[in-house]
Amino acid sequence: MITIVAKFIVHKGQESAFLKLIEELGEASRAEDGNIEYVLHKKVDDPSTYCLIEKWKDQAAIDFHNNTPHFTGTVPKIVELAEVSIDLYEPV
Amino acid sequence: MITIVAKFIVHKGQESAFLKLIEELGEASRAEDGNIEYVLHKKVDDPSTYCLIEKWKDQAAIDFHNNTPHFTGTVPKIVELAEVSIDLYEPV
Repeated sequence: MITIVAKFIVHKGQESAFLKLIEELGEASRAEDGNIEYVLHKKVDDPSTYCLIEKWKDQAAIDFHNNTPHFTGTVPKIVELAEVSIDLYEPV
Repeated sequence: MITIVAKFIVHKGQESAFLKLIEELGEASRAEDGNIEYVLHKKVDDPSTYCLIEKWKDQAAIDFHNNTPHFTGTVPKIVELAEVSIDLYEPV
């Protein structure tokens, strides 16, 4: 299993556009066979910071995901709305 | 539910000491009533970076946890071994 922790600091005034895109992407991503978990979180003490915690079966599932129409069609728009940092982890 | 994402960049040569402490802390933390999940992850492309993803029932569970002997006895040692950043999130 691979866990992706994606942190977003959303630009001022772009929250609703960001949330709409993430919701679309999330719905389609959760439907993929290789997906285990896909949950968006909001930072408790900073309403413009979000964290997407995704769990995928393996790297092949992530590669497949990264080439889906919902990913390639949505992610370029999302990165326009926020500062993004993405880390991939494996459970110890 | 509150999710804690704690990122650790472990100082050179301190990995085994860090892993030992986190394992001790994890075992005791998972036994707490308020804990839902407590999983250590290692960054796929950087062996000195770890991420602890913890899920707690609520803030009261976190407050209780932060005052347990295993927390107060271990965390001060852990922060000596790594650069630590901690974010608290709530699912959207």
